[in-house]
Amino acid sequence: MEDEITSEALKAFFRKDLFANFVGIELVEAGGGRSTARLTLHDHHRNGLGMVQGGVLFTLADLAFAAAVNSRGRTAVAIHCSIAYLKAAQGEFLRAEAREVFCGPKIASYTIQITDGTGDVVSQFEGMAYRKKERWSL
Amino acid sequence: MEDEITSEALKAFFRKDLFANFVGIELVEAGGGRSTARLTLHDHHRNGLGMVQGGVLFTLADLAFAAAVNSRGRTAVAIHCSIAYLKAAQGEFLRAEAREVFCGPKIASYTIQITDGTGDVVSQFEGMAYRKKERWSL
Amino acid sequence: MEDEITSEALKAFFRKDLFANFVGIELVEAGGGRSTARLTLHDHHRNGLGMVQGGVLFTLADLAFAAAVNSRGRTAVAIHCSIAYLKAAQGEFLRAEAREVFCGPKIASYTIQITDGTGDVVSQFEGMAYRKKERWSL
Amino acid sequence: MEDEITSEALKAFFRKDLFANFVGIELVEAGGGRSTARLTLHDHHRNGLGMVQGGVLFTLADLAFAAAVNSRGRTAVAIHCSIAYLKAAQGEFLRAEAREVFCGPKIASYTIQITDGTGDVVSQFEGMAYRKKERWSL
Repeated sequence: MEDEITSEALKAFFRKDLFANFVGIELVEAGGGRSTARLTLHDHHRNGLGMVQGGVLFTLADLAFAAAVNSRGRTAVAIHCSIAYLKAAQGEFLRAEAREVFCGPKIASYTIQITDGTGDVVSQFEGMAYRKKERWSL
Repeated sequence: MEDEITSEALKAFFRKDLFANFVGIELVEAGGGRSTARLTLHDHHRNGLGMVQGGVLFTLADLAFAAAVNSRGRTAVAIHCSIAYLKAAQGEFLRAEAREVFCGPKIASYTIQITDGTGDVVSQFEGMAYRKKERWSL
Repeated sequence: MEDEITSEALKAFFRKDLFANFVGIELVEAGGGRSTARLTLHDHHRNGLGMVQGGVLFTLADLAFAAAVNSRGRTAVAIHCSIAYLKAAQGEFLRAEAREVFCGPKIASYTIQITDGTGDVVSQFEGMAYRKKERWSL
Repeated sequence: MEDEITSEALKAFFRKDLFANFVGIELVEAGGGRSTARLTLHDHHRNGLGMVQGGVLFTLADLAFAAAVNSRGRTAVAIHCSIAYLKAAQGEFLRAEAREVFCGPKIASYTIQITDGTGDVVSQFEGMAYRKKERWSL
C-alpha cells in the first residue's frame, strides 16, 4: 500500500474529531488497515431504558472504521455503514476492533466488532468508504 | 393498531434518553408510526475535517426511529440499522423524519430521511426492530 | 440530468441480462430514475420450505435498481445492497418499484419496494451505486 | 447448542431448495454454525455487461447463510441481508464461506465471504435471522 500513516499521526488527527472527544472515545491504536478504539461508559451514554444507546455503539465503531481506512494513506469518506445489535452491553467499557475486508483504489470495506466489559461481542458494524485521490496529510 | 401512545407521552419518555439529550437532539413530535426529530448544530458535532460527524447523523435518525416504532404501543428494540451518506450537510440544523415501512407482530421496519438546513436530503437511514410482548408504559 | 435513456432502450438493454431472463424477470418500464419490474412465480422460485426464495426477491429488486440508476445516462455499478424481509409473499406474481433517493455525480441511492400478488409490501431493498464517467450506450 | 444437524441432513434438506438448484448452487458442507457453498459459472449467470449478476452472488451467499443458521437445530428465517460488491469476479467458479458472528435464542447473525476462481474476495454478505421455537426436522 502507498504511504501508510503511523499510529501516532492517526491518533493526533482523531483527537481533532470533536464529536468523538465529546462522547469520550479514545483511539487506542491504528495502522495497516486495522484499529482499536475504546470508551469508558457513563450515565450519559444510556437511553431511557438504561441500556447503552445505539448511537454510542455506532459512534465508537465509526471512529475505529475511520481510523482504519485513513491508515491506508488517502483521505476517505464513509458512504454506507450498518450495525447489528446482538446483545445488551454489560460492564464498564466498550472496545471496538476494526479489520479490513477490502481496500481497492476507490472503494474500501471494513468490519468492526464491539465487545463489552465481559468480553462478549455486542454489535457488528460494516463500513464502506470512498477513497479520494488526495494523499492523507495532517 | 393496539394502544397508540400520545406524542406528549413519547416526548416525556425520550427526554429520559440521556445520550440524545447530551448530543442535543429534540423529539419534535411522534405518533402513528411516524416522528420528527431535530438538532441544532454546534462545533462539538463535527469531525476532524469540520464535517458533521457520522455518529451525529446516525444518533439523530436513531432517535426518530425509536420514537416511531415505540409509538405503536409495544416496547421495541433495534436489531439492525444502516445509514447511507449522500452529501455533506450544510446549514445550522438537521431534521430527521421517520416513516413506517412495515409494522408486524414481531418485526417492524422504518425509513428515516435526514435533511439539512438547506432542505437537501443528506442521509437515509433504515431501521429494523424486534417488538416485545410487553405493552409500552411510562 | 444529462442524457436520459428511453424506457425502450433500457428494456432492450436489460433483455441482454441473461440471469434476469433465466429467472423470468421482466422490466416493465424505466426512466427518470424510476422503474418497475415484474415476475410471475413458478415452483422453481421456491425454497425447501415452499416459500419464495430470498435470492428471487433480491434479484427482482436488483434489476429494478439497475434499470433506475442506468436511466440517468451513465453506466453505474452496484456497490452495496440490502434487503429486509417483512412478510411471506402470497399470490402468483411479484412486482418491484424503484424510486430514487439521491443521484449525485459519483454516488446514487435507490429504494425498491416489492409487493406480492395481494398488494402487500413483502420486502424493502436499498441499493447504492457508483456512477462511472462513461455515458451509457447500447 | 441444542441438537445440531449433520452435514448430510442439511445437504439433503437444501437439495429441496428448488431455486438454489435451478441456479446451480451446491452446498458442499454445513454444521456447527458454518457452511461452504459453491457454484460453477455459466453464461446464464451473467448480466448485460458480461459480469456475474448481483443476484447470483447474493443467492450463493444466502444459501450458505441459510445452511449455517439452520445447522444450529432450529428453523430460522432471514430478516435482513446485505451485500457489498468489492471487485468483479474472475474465473470459472465462486465459493461462499459462512461463519457465525452470534447465535442467540431469537436472533442470529452470520458473515459470508465470496471468493472467485482466483481466490480473491469479491463480495461480503451479512445475514440476520429470526430463530423460531420449532426444532428443525427433515
